[in-house]
Amino acid sequence: MTKPLPVGATIGILGGGQLGRMLSVAASRLGLKTHIFEPEANAPAGDVAHKVTTADYEDAVALRAFGQSVDVITYEFENIPTSALDLLESLAPIHPGRAALATSQDRLTEKTFLRDLGLQTAPFADVTDMDSLNAAIAEIGTPAILKTRRMGYDGKGQARIMAPDDAAQAPADMQGAPAILEGFVDFSHEVSVIGARGADGAVACYDPGENVHEAGILRTTTVPARMTAAQRTDAVLIAARILNALDYVGVMGVELFVTPGGLIVNEFAPRVHNSGHWTQNGCTICQFEQHIRAVAGWPLGDGSRHSDVVMENLIGEDMDRLPDLAKTDAAIHLYGKAEAKPGRKMGHVNRVVKA
Amino acid sequence: MTKPLPVGATIGILGGGQLGRMLSVAASRLGLKTHIFEPEANAPAGDVAHKVTTADYEDAVALRAFGQSVDVITYEFENIPTSALDLLESLAPIHPGRAALATSQDRLTEKTFLRDLGLQTAPFADVTDMDSLNAAIAEIGTPAILKTRRMGYDGKGQARIMAPDDAAQAPADMQGAPAILEGFVDFSHEVSVIGARGADGAVACYDPGENVHEAGILRTTTVPARMTAAQRTDAVLIAARILNALDYVGVMGVELFVTPGGLIVNEFAPRVHNSGHWTQNGCTICQFEQHIRAVAGWPLGDGSRHSDVVMENLIGEDMDRLPDLAKTDAAIHLYGKAEAKPGRKMGHVNRVVKA
Repeated sequence: MTKPLPVGATIGILGGGQLGRMLSVAASRLGLKTHIFEPEANAPAGDVAHKVTTADYEDAVALRAFGQSVDVITYEFENIPTSALDLLESLAPIHPGRAALATSQDRLTEKTFLRDLGLQTAPFADVTDMDSLNAAIAEIGTPAILKTRRMGYDGKGQARIMAPDDAAQAPADMQGAPAILEGFVDFSHEVSVIGARGADGAVACYDPGENVHEAGILRTTTVPARMTAAQRTDAVLIAARILNALDYVGVMGVELFVTPGGLIVNEFAPRVHNSGHWTQNGCTICQFEQHIRAVAGWPLGDGSRHSDVVMENLIGEDMDRLPDLAKTDAAIHLYGKAEAKPGRKMGHVNRVVKA
Repeated sequence: MTKPLPVGATIGILGGGQLGRMLSVAASRLGLKTHIFEPEANAPAGDVAHKVTTADYEDAVALRAFGQSVDVITYEFENIPTSALDLLESLAPIHPGRAALATSQDRLTEKTFLRDLGLQTAPFADVTDMDSLNAAIAEIGTPAILKTRRMGYDGKGQARIMAPDDAAQAPADMQGAPAILEGFVDFSHEVSVIGARGADGAVACYDPGENVHEAGILRTTTVPARMTAAQRTDAVLIAARILNALDYVGVMGVELFVTPGGLIVNEFAPRVHNSGHWTQNGCTICQFEQHIRAVAGWPLGDGSRHSDVVMENLIGEDMDRLPDLAKTDAAIHLYGKAEAKPGRKMGHVNRVVKA
């Protein structure tokens, strides 16, 4: 185990969006400074950071200066260019580590990793050309969904294959990128577990939350989720198995489908997660502070839930409701983004459910 | 009522210590930026602020630039030079207003104001010279305490008069400054109420906390305080009377002595208060956000208590206990101060008491 970072040390954060912003605030509570690296100007995290570097991930000079100015590096998004990581890892420790990044950046690697751990996933198969696609459809059946192995979100880089005849068009939709075919899962609802693992190997998980999406974007997370006690235990064990297998340090979001046949792992994100925002008002130590504690080598904090919470994302024009929301007893968390574009996450509210 | 500040607006904060730091974090949750004005370099609030101006309160150019860059001005300490306020008030609204500042800056004005409101205070009398001191002692009796009307803290600028014979030396201790003689109050314990008043005149008070001091510095605040239901109601009514009389906008800390004859007002501070730090882990909306909401013209938030809390200040060498504290389930709040000098407030911990 590395020595805990002393008060006054600096945490470098790759990415200056809302997750970086809330990580930065959490770091301040522990007397730690943050330095944000973000290509876009006026980063939300910049308002609450000790320092901000505005530069591209291809800017080796800026990356080097950043890496030399910080004591540890973490990140708020998983698609960090490999070249940037190669440069930075010689300058400061990166947590969570590269195994987690490499695994989660590639859907085929991720699913294979999960299956090799003995966890249930949707049926999947590697697709590199028309022959392997036809073989995959024969194995998995339809309906199924073809996804690029890397990148893609909110339905981009995906093609639904409702019947074998749809296969002909699908590779064109992928534009020749390596892909994965995934079978559909018949689930009643989606939950997620926010797990944390400290530098000492200690694991702590928050109570699972139940997620509702709209148009591919998380709309609400409700805690507690509808689950049996056995399912809750399973969810925590699944998260712990993933965290330990990756020798992970930090907070991870694990999305699970609840089915009659048990919990099926959808995917994990090697970072704080939107479905964990409820912890800010439901727990003494929120996911952001838990992540900072982990990457700083501090002991994990108390993540037990003191209140039930419904978290609702404020997306785009939801911001028009702000004057009314401010009059309620909801806790408001805004990200300081200038313009409320459609589909853009502008903030969230946590409604604490009182006994 | 003024219009609520829009998201993206800037709150100017006079003073960059821990209170400014926690106000700045609270502002970020509401999508508001902060600009800190602080004479000392490396201000704790600077780590989490959009902008920091490091300049003296006599620097009219810096003050003017600051005042022109912000939408509203608030402060984290009450002894702001009058000349700075005179300059700033022409540039942006100042909340809480100058009536509260003028009243709380002068012990005689404060006590007179409280008495005129019909509230109980310690017996007091104006002291300008030896004759008025002797008259005050004859009226109030001994033991009593002579204090300068302005400034002074932690026992500085004070002289105890245990018997009438002590009077001869006392004015010398005051170095000729205008003073006030205060009689002793026989109280069982001290409590404080953190009250808030919005721009719309709405008043909300947090549950009273019970304070323990050591060497003149707050050591712990425990919530709930030992009080009867009637005393709790009285405490809230007292705070509301003060807030309304001053047409106050913002959060105020009111210190009260609990006595068999009722609650006696010790003093009030026109700002967020150390004895309100427990609200960070006991309420959905903490005192810092409540203050920001008020000065930004937003509706007050939900200050009801979801948990019992014991707040303990970390003073000077208390920081040596940090590694052990980090292993407990306490919520840690550090101020980012470089050096742990004796008597210096370095942070605090909130211990949530579980049912």
